[in-house]
Amino acid sequence: MSFISATYHAQAATQNSAEIIARSIAIEQTVEVPESLITPTIERDIVGTIISVKPLTKPNDPRQKGFYEIEMQYDSDLACNHLPQLINLVYGNISIKHTVQLARLTLPSDLLSQFRGPNFGVAGLRKLLEVQDRPLLCTALKPRGLSNNALANLAYEFALGGGDIIKDDHNLVSPDFQSFHDRTLLCQQAVQKANEITGLRCLYAPYLSAPVGNLEEYATYLADINVKAMLISPSLLGLDTVRYIADTFGMCMLAHPTFTGTLYHEPGHGIEIGIFMGLLFRLAGIDATVFTNFNGRFPVTKQDCMSIAHHLRAPLGEIKTAWPGPAGGMQFENIHEMIDAYGNDTMIVIGGALLTRRATLSESTRELLDLMMKSQSS
Amino acid sequence: MSFISATYHAQAATQNSAEIIARSIAIEQTVEVPESLITPTIERDIVGTIISVKPLTKPNDPRQKGFYEIEMQYDSDLACNHLPQLINLVYGNISIKHTVQLARLTLPSDLLSQFRGPNFGVAGLRKLLEVQDRPLLCTALKPRGLSNNALANLAYEFALGGGDIIKDDHNLVSPDFQSFHDRTLLCQQAVQKANEITGLRCLYAPYLSAPVGNLEEYATYLADINVKAMLISPSLLGLDTVRYIADTFGMCMLAHPTFTGTLYHEPGHGIEIGIFMGLLFRLAGIDATVFTNFNGRFPVTKQDCMSIAHHLRAPLGEIKTAWPGPAGGMQFENIHEMIDAYGNDTMIVIGGALLTRRATLSESTRELLDLMMKSQSS
Repeated sequence: MSFISATYHAQAATQNSAEIIARSIAIEQTVEVPESLITPTIERDIVGTIISVKPLTKPNDPRQKGFYEIEMQYDSDLACNHLPQLINLVYGNISIKHTVQLARLTLPSDLLSQFRGPNFGVAGLRKLLEVQDRPLLCTALKPRGLSNNALANLAYEFALGGGDIIKDDHNLVSPDFQSFHDRTLLCQQAVQKANEITGLRCLYAPYLSAPVGNLEEYATYLADINVKAMLISPSLLGLDTVRYIADTFGMCMLAHPTFTGTLYHEPGHGIEIGIFMGLLFRLAGIDATVFTNFNGRFPVTKQDCMSIAHHLRAPLGEIKTAWPGPAGGMQFENIHEMIDAYGNDTMIVIGGALLTRRATLSESTRELLDLMMKSQSS
Repeated sequence: MSFISATYHAQAATQNSAEIIARSIAIEQTVEVPESLITPTIERDIVGTIISVKPLTKPNDPRQKGFYEIEMQYDSDLACNHLPQLINLVYGNISIKHTVQLARLTLPSDLLSQFRGPNFGVAGLRKLLEVQDRPLLCTALKPRGLSNNALANLAYEFALGGGDIIKDDHNLVSPDFQSFHDRTLLCQQAVQKANEITGLRCLYAPYLSAPVGNLEEYATYLADINVKAMLISPSLLGLDTVRYIADTFGMCMLAHPTFTGTLYHEPGHGIEIGIFMGLLFRLAGIDATVFTNFNGRFPVTKQDCMSIAHHLRAPLGEIKTAWPGPAGGMQFENIHEMIDAYGNDTMIVIGGALLTRRATLSESTRELLDLMMKSQSS
């Protein structure tokens, strides 16, 4: 028997009401019945076990003042070895019921061993790219509305400039398979052509978004044209759909943060950002999480970003470590600061600033890579 | 050319800053590039069009005081006729960026016509059950931890008492196919046996939760044993996975609200509850949305509940109307009030109170049905 440890930060007026909330979480998340229907056996085997309830002394956010910390244990069998039920167990109904945040989550090794995790991870992607000595540089193909040739040309220029990964923008969605086919083929060929010139191994990561019944057809096609990486949106498709695609196609999976905001926008509610976009994304097979960086155009704190990076690279059973991909208004001017903050095993994602820097994207890319090398050695 | 109309309620200090936010939404949701990269053609064809920005005079919540109302139009082609991209378009990146709620959403008929919607809906489920003259009565099989025989016996008793739909509790998840098979077969047979006695057509709705790659196997098996309805969790599996299962298996789909809370817990952020659990669930093929009722054990307002009910039953192209299923601490004492509030085309979902009311579930069920008939005629 092994246990999942889930720690909640809950809003409560007194110790006593915090304890009542703790009991309601223990019941709501497992059996959802009145107390009178809980037999001793069900209490022992199914209902969550409250380990402790105490005033929260280290809140994730100052607005959690007066919150309580509730440590809970669940029998790991209750998660039934799949992600939708794991999420249901640790943060299902209580997402509706209380002002409560899932603040920490520790999974036992027998549960972790049910998940393959990232196909490449930090070491695997370095090997694939043959880049050992610096952070990775990623950019986005955009904007939607450009012709396929113009997009393919951007991909070519970036690869020619020595960039590592060029992903589709997540707004670059095709209305049908034929247009997806045409666009991704042109971009893949453009990157391959540049790679032949540079001798480098830049990767093109198309964005996979389609009706669920068509995802495999799209992904199979990408594999056929030798695409090794893709961008995907876990919060739009569902975490386990992402896990299924990752496991089935074995590609390097980049996660986009679109539609994740409601999980962590409200202080003291939702799932702590690092648990969701670090730990749970890794279970779903994500090799690199793209997230909105602090000091960019999104209201995300440095603490949030460090938590994502921590959860992506912390030990997690036998599961590979993954890449933090800070993005969203990244500038040439703060590359040094970013590398300082995140360290070497980081995928710098820079879009707009790279596109507007110089006459060609290859020049901008070269300049940024130079800057990254300097930042690192300084 | 047709348009999606999306109205946002956004936190802003002044009219001017609200207009800046409106422009940032228009760009973020469509092209996500600096202004300098937006050509006139891309501006015309792709970027969202701001229709109006004005102070919010009718907030959904009093805590939205000082918010602004932003009306936006998007070319409906940008949604590419699939749910993940529709959600990305109307509330993707901005879920992270602003304190902003998607407050209203109007979809054009050409986009609506791409979705089949509920397989049964209000009229179809009445026909399937042969119940024309009253609200429906639904209960939940629980708690997890009971033996399969005990669960099947509850299903039998409820059907014998004249109940309409008995759904699995959403915590009733099986670790593998064999245990899912054994449990659901027993329950389905129990309901069929009771139906033979009563001459009624009570439905058993098992909860479908499995690794994504196994969902079809599980659902195929349910169809094989003549199950006609299922419970599913859109926020755990992803809306489009639900749509795929609904379209593929043609069953009556009940949606569980687990893990939806972060979408509407924070006033002024997320997606208005009726849009998500009414309109979008219907597009995903949901026949009945189970949601936590006001005055129950969940902090949901009557206004929220009425909005869900409205969106489930309002005209929506050719898409069938669906059932509101108020749940979560429903009591015998407030059945009259509930029927008054929701009207006849409502699925009353009552679990714990029914299980604890009398010596047998069939007696409790009969009593509640009597009460429902009286409430209605009074």
